[in-house]
Amino acid sequence: MKNLLLFSILYLLSSIFNGALSQKQDSLMISRIFADALTHNDSYRNLEYLCTKIGGRLAGTPESMKAVKWAEKTLKSMGLDTVFLQECTVRYWERGEKETGRVISSVTGNKDLHPDALGGSVPTPKEGLSAKVVEVANYNELKRLGKEKIAGKIVFINHPADPSLYNTFAAYGGVAGYRVRGAVQAAYYGAVAFIVRSATTAHDEYPHTGIMHYADTVNKIPAVALSTNESDRLHNWLEQDPDLSVSIKVSSIEHPSVVSYNVIGEIRGAEHPEGIIAFGGHLDCWDNGQGAHDDGAGVVQTMDILRLYRSLGIKPKHTLRAVVFMDEEMEQRGGKAYAEEAKKMLDKNNISVTHRPSPIAYRHIAAIEADRGGFSPWGFSIDATDEQVKKVQSWKNLLLPYGIYILEKGGSGVDIKDLKPLGVPLFGLITDWQRYFDYHHSANDSFDKVNIRELQLGTGAMGALVYLIDQYGL
Amino acid sequence: MKNLLLFSILYLLSSIFNGALSQKQDSLMISRIFADALTHNDSYRNLEYLCTKIGGRLAGTPESMKAVKWAEKTLKSMGLDTVFLQECTVRYWERGEKETGRVISSVTGNKDLHPDALGGSVPTPKEGLSAKVVEVANYNELKRLGKEKIAGKIVFINHPADPSLYNTFAAYGGVAGYRVRGAVQAAYYGAVAFIVRSATTAHDEYPHTGIMHYADTVNKIPAVALSTNESDRLHNWLEQDPDLSVSIKVSSIEHPSVVSYNVIGEIRGAEHPEGIIAFGGHLDCWDNGQGAHDDGAGVVQTMDILRLYRSLGIKPKHTLRAVVFMDEEMEQRGGKAYAEEAKKMLDKNNISVTHRPSPIAYRHIAAIEADRGGFSPWGFSIDATDEQVKKVQSWKNLLLPYGIYILEKGGSGVDIKDLKPLGVPLFGLITDWQRYFDYHHSANDSFDKVNIRELQLGTGAMGALVYLIDQYGL
Repeated sequence: MKNLLLFSILYLLSSIFNGALSQKQDSLMISRIFADALTHNDSYRNLEYLCTKIGGRLAGTPESMKAVKWAEKTLKSMGLDTVFLQECTVRYWERGEKETGRVISSVTGNKDLHPDALGGSVPTPKEGLSAKVVEVANYNELKRLGKEKIAGKIVFINHPADPSLYNTFAAYGGVAGYRVRGAVQAAYYGAVAFIVRSATTAHDEYPHTGIMHYADTVNKIPAVALSTNESDRLHNWLEQDPDLSVSIKVSSIEHPSVVSYNVIGEIRGAEHPEGIIAFGGHLDCWDNGQGAHDDGAGVVQTMDILRLYRSLGIKPKHTLRAVVFMDEEMEQRGGKAYAEEAKKMLDKNNISVTHRPSPIAYRHIAAIEADRGGFSPWGFSIDATDEQVKKVQSWKNLLLPYGIYILEKGGSGVDIKDLKPLGVPLFGLITDWQRYFDYHHSANDSFDKVNIRELQLGTGAMGALVYLIDQYGL
Repeated sequence: MKNLLLFSILYLLSSIFNGALSQKQDSLMISRIFADALTHNDSYRNLEYLCTKIGGRLAGTPESMKAVKWAEKTLKSMGLDTVFLQECTVRYWERGEKETGRVISSVTGNKDLHPDALGGSVPTPKEGLSAKVVEVANYNELKRLGKEKIAGKIVFINHPADPSLYNTFAAYGGVAGYRVRGAVQAAYYGAVAFIVRSATTAHDEYPHTGIMHYADTVNKIPAVALSTNESDRLHNWLEQDPDLSVSIKVSSIEHPSVVSYNVIGEIRGAEHPEGIIAFGGHLDCWDNGQGAHDDGAGVVQTMDILRLYRSLGIKPKHTLRAVVFMDEEMEQRGGKAYAEEAKKMLDKNNISVTHRPSPIAYRHIAAIEADRGGFSPWGFSIDATDEQVKKVQSWKNLLLPYGIYILEKGGSGVDIKDLKPLGVPLFGLITDWQRYFDYHHSANDSFDKVNIRELQLGTGAMGALVYLIDQYGL
């Protein structure tokens, strides 16, 4: 009994000691990960190239193909174990000639408008179209006006994003639906075109585009966004002259679908090469900006995790995989193709599926997406079991010194969400969200808006999480 | 016994219920505080005026006097109970004509330099001075070279701020001493002038100034800062030609001291008007920029707390006081004068001291300083007793939904630190520190670098803390 007690005490002490030791080692390694991220400018230089030399790169466009080649070349230059392309078929919508708009009014005087077509919009007739404008704040007002008041007119939904919300994603979520589905609602009541206020709390001159959808049951009408300032001005002009007319011209082209690619780079795992920890961002971005925060940042950060592992000489137990996704903005074809391949790989009979140059790796043990801009990282939303969430939360003290204070259950990212049915624990990098929608989907999303340290810290945050998952599993 | 037990249970339940209720009411009030801060642009417009219409405003200068008048007028326009000026005598150093610098070398070719004099530097002779340059990385190297190698030369301390540190204040702290005391060290070994690398991890063309000190025991030599990029170039030119000479010209003027002012605005407390909760930032800033983040942001945020109380119709129990401090950058004469007055007020016999139009208010129950830029707020460093710190930490769940995750013991701010001997609990607003030293003390610290939401959230964070202190004391 006495010996057993002594043994128990010694065992307990040794566990505590070992725990403290591994905690200390982890703490040291995580400090090295952040220091390495903060002292290497590769991700910033990569982002500069992607933004300023390639620029806008909507899926299907020649620019997106250039970006694929750039991503492949960049990953190949990093001395990884594997770099490969993964095919996906993507929609190819082209903006065409820059949109124009004009207010015609003898009361206010004629005024130029500066719209951006929404992504997926049909074109106007070549000469443009012109009609009176009905401004509403929401669908209820649209319904109240009905076909009688709306038919033949342009519907302008001018619903400001709510600035009182701390979480700008909530503010965006409150209005993005007007952009996505407003044209269908307007067309239902017979509108000939659709104008939407940009989905941002910022007050400036940048129109913010983004995907919109049509329905087969109603006419497909041209759809554009105005900047928030221009929306306010149009509102004022309409108050002065409700009978003013607006002419807009959209020259978009819907090309046939084309083949594009996800780009994948790997470091093979030393102990469990069959297990994959994937992390990624999306390479495509809207064509009206440089896609610096959305999502060039996520692309270069996730590439940079692999550089960081090489730089620190860490040999991961599991296979680390940076995934540069194609086509997040239009139809998430890259994410879907990736999940399909991931599912196929799980079937041992499919060991020789195409596009899998790492025949050993076949199961995902975690996937992380970075798609909220290159701002100071705040943590991760976790789409996993309660037990897995708790395990991640047990690492909080290791991450808190670097501002990673959010480790909560929540959605991850649209490129990895289709891995969910495979039971893969998913993570979304959460960053300071105050500035994100100032830039999102607009010409304002340019390289000069990215702070190098904030960008690097995103690499550090994900690198640290990858390290802990690799060490301790989930 | 049975009744006692029943009573105890009922009492406990009622306490829990009341606790939950007040927690819920506090949570609601704090959400209103943040929403109000995020939906009023007064602070942003005030900052725009201060930065773009007044601009640089070092203590003692005519611009700083304009800023005092502006602050007084702005506070007076807010319908407060009291607005008054508090006298302080400040140093008046003037940069004079813009500094010039030039590298003279037949090897590298002659090159222009773009120095900023450090704050407090003596001038060069009118025609400038010219000498060879000794570059060192630290004081040890200086000591090793000694008088023999240094006498008659210009010392250039080129010690980069450490980018590997997550906390940029630590990186700054590691090099700011060279700026402050480097000229004394250099002069000790006979140097004729002093050049320091800017105290920032950023790589750009902005020289960062800041206060420097002389010692009576050695010569006062002119002292300037070069941007980090220019420091790197000078380093390279010195590698190519160690015998190059540099000429610099500084035209600074040390005027006699002048009278200046802190500007104070109050809302009188409804229940404990004698107790003051003070919050402030400093009005003065370096003359080479607009002082947007350092510390125009703190000024307009702390003013905005009073606006917010009026806007929400909250009647504070204690007297709320926004303090716009003068002369943080040079000698903290405003902070010192404020603390002296605060001390005098505590003595009931001094009830009629000058500059105290609120004879009822006399003791500080808390003071908060905002002087880390208008970035996303992360929390507060607390300079108070363990018990007080614990009390503040008990409010964490109320503040965490707004990203306020740091409530830790630590220093507050230099303008309020002299209240410490009076036993006043002190708080420093902690904000995202990644970008602060990109701007700090340079021409880069301009209004356009401030994000409106991040600025407003600082008001919200301090407004919420003020509310909780006002409700529950410390």
